[in-house]
Order: sequence, then C-alpha cells, then structure tokens
Amino acid sequence: MIETPYLLFLGDAPDQLAAKVAQGIKDWRPENAVGQFRMAGCKADVGLSDMTLAEAKSAGAKTLVIGVANRGGVISPAWKEVLIAALEMGFDLASGLHNLLRDEGDLVAASQTHGGTLHDVRVPSVGYPIANGIKRSGKRVLAVGTDCSVGKMYTALALDEAMRKRGLKSTFRATGQTGILITGHGVPLDAVIADFMAGSVEYLTPDNDDDHWDIIEGQGSLFHVSFSGVTMALIHGGQPDALILSHEPSRAHMRGLPGYTLPSLETLRDTALPLARISNPACQVVGIAVNTQHMTEDEALSYLAEVEARMGLPAVDPYRQGADRLVDALAAV
Amino acid sequence: MIETPYLLFLGDAPDQLAAKVAQGIKDWRPENAVGQFRMAGCKADVGLSDMTLAEAKSAGAKTLVIGVANRGGVISPAWKEVLIAALEMGFDLASGLHNLLRDEGDLVAASQTHGGTLHDVRVPSVGYPIANGIKRSGKRVLAVGTDCSVGKMYTALALDEAMRKRGLKSTFRATGQTGILITGHGVPLDAVIADFMAGSVEYLTPDNDDDHWDIIEGQGSLFHVSFSGVTMALIHGGQPDALILSHEPSRAHMRGLPGYTLPSLETLRDTALPLARISNPACQVVGIAVNTQHMTEDEALSYLAEVEARMGLPAVDPYRQGADRLVDALAAV
Repeated sequence: MIETPYLLFLGDAPDQLAAKVAQGIKDWRPENAVGQFRMAGCKADVGLSDMTLAEAKSAGAKTLVIGVANRGGVISPAWKEVLIAALEMGFDLASGLHNLLRDEGDLVAASQTHGGTLHDVRVPSVGYPIANGIKRSGKRVLAVGTDCSVGKMYTALALDEAMRKRGLKSTFRATGQTGILITGHGVPLDAVIADFMAGSVEYLTPDNDDDHWDIIEGQGSLFHVSFSGVTMALIHGGQPDALILSHEPSRAHMRGLPGYTLPSLETLRDTALPLARISNPACQVVGIAVNTQHMTEDEALSYLAEVEARMGLPAVDPYRQGADRLVDALAAV
Repeated sequence: MIETPYLLFLGDAPDQLAAKVAQGIKDWRPENAVGQFRMAGCKADVGLSDMTLAEAKSAGAKTLVIGVANRGGVISPAWKEVLIAALEMGFDLASGLHNLLRDEGDLVAASQTHGGTLHDVRVPSVGYPIANGIKRSGKRVLAVGTDCSVGKMYTALALDEAMRKRGLKSTFRATGQTGILITGHGVPLDAVIADFMAGSVEYLTPDNDDDHWDIIEGQGSLFHVSFSGVTMALIHGGQPDALILSHEPSRAHMRGLPGYTLPSLETLRDTALPLARISNPACQVVGIAVNTQHMTEDEALSYLAEVEARMGLPAVDPYRQGADRLVDALAAV
C-alpha cells in the first residue's frame, strides 16, 4: 500500500510519452496527486501544478512517485539529488522502474536515516499463497485480449470510473506496475513466482459484497506464447463472472512475435470462456472493447457496428465512447 | 549442471516413501549413483550398496544428493555432520528441499573453505529469457494431465528409456526438482518468475537434430486452477509436436481442490490441442498414458481397452506395460 496523495516526479522526461505513468495517475486518480515536479529540460507536462518538494509537502503529499521512464529504466544520477532531498523531507518513494530503488545504496541510506519507505512496485512485497480455488463472494470481471497491449488496463479503468459514477460498488484491481502506481496497491503479476501466480490473484480479489465488482486488470493473452501462462493464472485465480474481449484491429502480428497472427474474436471467446468456466461455471462473455486509435471516427463506428452484429455482444471503444454500455452488460449479469 | 555420479543420502528417512527422490535416481539413472548413505535409524533402502563418504569418494562420486524428504523440508541438525564432512572431503551437495542449502551458514562456510558447490534445485540458477516463439528444430513431446500428479514424469522417463533402448535420439527434459536431481539438469519451472516461464522452457529445449526428441516433463494441469499457468507456459514454450494425455482414473476430485471434478480425456484433448497449435500448428495428440495403480491387472487392461477404443489412440500404463506403444506413436509423427 503506497501512501497517497503523491507528488509526481517527471524528472527530465525527454517527451510526453516518457511520463505515461504520471499521465495515468493524473487521468484516472487525479485525487491521488497534489502536483508535478519537473527538472530543468523536462519535456513532459501532465497538467498539474508545478511544485517544489516543500510546496508538495505543505499540500499534504506523502509519496514522491517516479512517473517517468527513461531509457533502460535506470535511476539517473541527475534524479538522485531530488530523490534524496525528498527522503530527507519525509517523503516515501515509489517506482516501477526495472532498476530498483532498493538497489541504490544512497537511497537506502537516506530512507533508513529519515524513516521513508522505498516502494519498488515491480517486486512483490507479499508472500502469496498457492491458489485454493474456493469460490469467493462478490463479482469479478476480467478483460482478455487477442494480444498483449490492446487496451485491457484502459478498459478496466474506464469500467471502474463508469461504475463509480453510477454509484455502483467497484474496485480496480491492478496487476501491473502502472496500475499499481495509479491506485497505490495491487499485485505485480509478471514478477510473481510461477507456483503462486493464481494465488496472488485470489489474494488480490478477496471475498466482497454480493453487489461489488472487482475489475481485474488483464495481462498478456492466451494467444501470446511469451505470456499466456500469466493470463491463464488471471483467469483461474480471478474466478471471473464476466469476461470482456479486448482487441486492436490494426495489428499485423502478435506483439513482438512476427509470424504469429492474432486470433479472431470468436476464437478468443471460444478459448477463454471454457477455461474461465473451470474456476467459475457461471462465467459469461458480456462485451467487447476495441482499441480503435488507428481508425478515423467513421471507420471506428463502422467497425464496432460490424463486430457488434457479428458477435451479438455490445462492442465499444471505451476511449472514444466511454464504458457505459459495458457497465450495462455487467449489470445484467 | 550437477556433477555425476552421486552418492545418495537417505539420512534418517522414516519410511521408504520419504526416499522417493533417491528411488527415482536409482530407477531411472542407476549409472548416476555409486551407492547410498544411510544414518542410524534409516527406514529406507533403494537397493544400492551402502557406502561411507570415503568409499563413495574412491568409487568416483562427485556429489552427495539429498535423496530424502523429511517433514517440513528442513535440513535437520542430525544431517549437518554428514553434509559438512562431505564438503570437507570435496563433494558438492545437491538438494530439492524447500529449505535451501545456501541458507545454512555452516554449509555455506564449509563450501567456501573446501570449494564445493551447493545446488538448490528448487531455485533457478539461470536468468531465463522472455520466450520468443521462434520455431526450433528437432521434435518435442509433452504429457498433459487431467490433473496434477497423474504420472506425467513417470511417463516421460519411461518414454525416454524406451526410445534409448531402440537407439532413437531422445533427451528427458526435467522441469521439477525430482526430475532435475535424476538427470542432473533442468528448469525448476514452478519457481521461475511469471514473465520468464515460457522462455525457460524454450531455453530447456533448444534447437536439435531433426530426428531428436525432447521429452519434456509436464507440470500441473490446464484444469488445475492453482497451477494451470505453469502448464500453459510448458505448452507454449515447449512447442510440442506431440501431446500425450495423462490420467489417473480413481480421483474423486482435482488434487487438493475438493469441488473441482476432473475433465474427461476428450475435454483435455479438445482444450490442450488448440492451445498447443498456437505455438506449433503441426501438433498432434498421439497417445494416452493412464496410471492404473489403484486397479487390478484385469481392471486395468479392460479400462485401457475401453479408453483406446473410445479415443482412437493407443492407451497404455507405462508402469505396467512400458512405453513402447507410445514410442511407436511418436515414431509415426
């Protein structure tokens, strides 16, 4: 659990894309951030007030979150001065970088001296159990993709937002480092040891109110040979009551795997649903989320209409259209 | 890579079952063991010559293998004297216990002083890559089960033995600690970090001669919600050309999961084969291995005949009948 609110550290980000973690926090949990901290030469701006460490501290910030990825995921010497000053002022630090805060001797020393916590969200901080498969109360929805990086996290966050706006009970359950930094908690599933993957998902989505939805962030794809085991553990550990099929129609091949074509939405449905019903026999496929970012508005609407007619399920782009129709579909479960 | 031959340490095993790792080595790789070492009160005997450390050393033993599991997987104080003496005499140590040799200060100190290696085969010793899905040369076979612990390792070892006897090229590829200790190498798949599972299986089963078979030890089951992700990674990382369906007909429910029934062999076939064809479109289901240990000979033969007729595939119990008919089926691929 990372203490909020945050000050978002954008460092010397070379461009806006490098600050996508900070942008995600700003977009989805603006209440979690009091401002942004930019160094000289920073080319990113997520639209929050620029603050010094002292100003952020006065505004109540508890944690300085590294909201920027630089080349190689390293913690650059140029950042160190700020990070150490933050620890000296009583901030915690949180990072999703490959290079860990805890491996930097000067940060460890400063955190010990000043009592701050170093959160490396890529590394599990919990000893997860082996999954027991016992049926849990409450409801769960999981997005499964024809490929990796087709918009599953975005879909989950948009669903969560739409449900909250309607006053429905929902919790976004992060399974990757960006999601964990956005919400302050979660399971870094790709870093969990094989035997405990499904158990970590059970741990993440415990018993809940009968009318509460856990919206589980998807990972990988059953059809992506590098990461399909992670997806499988999400399906079986998550016991989803509902699946949403996620797709990005412009891909020529599976991400990073030339020679591997994407499955059709029908094949995804017919593969994922029987597997999901092993852990939850009542599971249903309720809708389709399409990432149409590479289409014009007309192309997108026409594509979505075709998919909806063909599959007999609501098909939306949550970015263009919001997730309301997917919430309607969940409400009908 | 653990240096062979071994001296098998049976310690103070409370019964024969506790020495099943040593028994596995004796049964499948007798050439890897010069003898057994038993302490006072040992109730197990794998049928090798009892040797002192000095006798084993003279006989060429390189590694003392802990071939016994005691309660809790701990390395008992009673064992320490022997293990330290072995290190002092120049042995390496190898263990598949949960408690690691490397976490025992006195063993680490002795290994540093005398130059011996401590092999904890539950822990990966390699930084595995992320799977790339690129088609590899050579052939691969994988047993997939209706449940965990239905005889997949035994089937793989029996296949390997039958192929070698015929002069065919094959390698048993261990993916669990018992298999690793039997052969001296392998990947402890259940301890690999999620993102690298499939990559570790690719690493384990590299390019090979066109007429060579890697016989990959299976793990878990697609239908076992605790471990299905591990099985999935084996299917996609292993790129199997052939699947063997493994089954144990007496199970009332999935191992450790009351309330979860086993799938039929038909359901296993129809689930596993399409998933395997994602990474290897030529994959075929070639046979069925049934563990009939809880049946009489007549019951077993009658059951196998029924399964064979129903599924249209050779169905054998490799323990009762050997794996020759499965080798015939592989040879036809």
